Amino acid sequence: MGPPPSASGRRDAQRNATRVLDAASTIVGRCGAKALTMDAVADQAGVGKGTVFRRFGNRAGLMAALVDHIERDLQERFMTGPPPLGPGAPPLDRLLAFGAARLEIVAAQGPLMIEIGDVGRRFDVPAHTLALTHVRLLLRALEVDGDVELLASALMAPLDPALVALQRERGMSLERLVAGWHDLVRRVVRVR
Amino acid sequence: MGPPPSASGRRDAQRNATRVLDAASTIVGRCGAKALTMDAVADQAGVGKGTVFRRFGNRAGLMAALVDHIERDLQERFMTGPPPLGPGAPPLDRLLAFGAARLEIVAAQGPLMIEIGDVGRRFDVPAHTLALTHVRLLLRALEVDGDVELLASALMAPLDPALVALQRERGMSLERLVAGWHDLVRRVVRVR
Repeated sequence: MGPPPSASGRRDAQRNATRVLDAASTIVGRCGAKALTMDAVADQAGVGKGTVFRRFGNRAGLMAALVDHIERDLQERFMTGPPPLGPGAPPLDRLLAFGAARLEIVAAQGPLMIEIGDVGRRFDVPAHTLALTHVRLLLRALEVDGDVELLASALMAPLDPALVALQRERGMSLERLVAGWHDLVRRVVRVR
Repeated sequence: MGPPPSASGRRDAQRNATRVLDAASTIVGRCGAKALTMDAVADQAGVGKGTVFRRFGNRAGLMAALVDHIERDLQERFMTGPPPLGPGAPPLDRLLAFGAARLEIVAAQGPLMIEIGDVGRRFDVPAHTLALTHVRLLLRALEVDGDVELLASALMAPLDPALVALQRERGMSLERLVAGWHDLVRRVVRVR
């Protein structure tokens, strides 16, 4: 065990970690999840391979951290970001913006989210639970009647990365998926 | 290679296979997917272990055949069975009956369906495609406006075995899930 890291040492480590995750995100967006290797990410981030291994352990650790990083970014946007996704816009606008933002992320990062997703557990992760709560609160703000917990779940279900990946493979555009989700929301909240 | 089996030999083999699959279904329903072993299923079906191995190869082969068996049974019921699930009932009644029947199967056989489900491919299997087509045709029969393909997909998504398993773990009853799906259908087709 070495001495505890200094405050500036911790800041450097945090900055490096963010740099590595941004680099990982770029690689996956450009070349797909399979192209994400420890070597490629160290190169892209301009840090030593040792830094990547020390921080993330192995490729699986890096991928899990990347998905967490992507989810946190969306969380910040819908919890504290600018409207219509963040607070300040009417609840229906926020709900419509949420699905569009999530579909955009899933369309770009879906293969990665699928690769790390544990089939039996993918609905039981903090990020999913937080998103579900967000949708439920918006439905309540809209004074939707009925079993709001299940309606929120029904609205989240079509945003599943594996489903979206297949729909995209079959030639459905992101625009069409967003329009379809928006139509679903309007039906569920019973507005035209 | 032996001589080709006689017609009565083939009938016996088919009867044995059905017996094994019914036994497998009973074991999973009673004791869960983990209890499904080649030994247990041979015992329960009252056939030799060799018969099970010859027909299904290994445990994975048996599980895949069992899910196929369960899906086919539902397919027969909604394609040619008695109303309201089968032909003859009004389309809305058929749609409501379909979700209830599928939720019942998923609630009973979910862990098995999850265990054999390939995470990235679970929406890309013939059984899922057939069910999706069925829902789409019923939505068309109901003269639902909009992107019927995506609406059908949105109605199928909450019937996902992994999602239903988690909801049941969290204490949601099958009755509640069925009522929630029925409410979703009524909103999607815009009836009260």
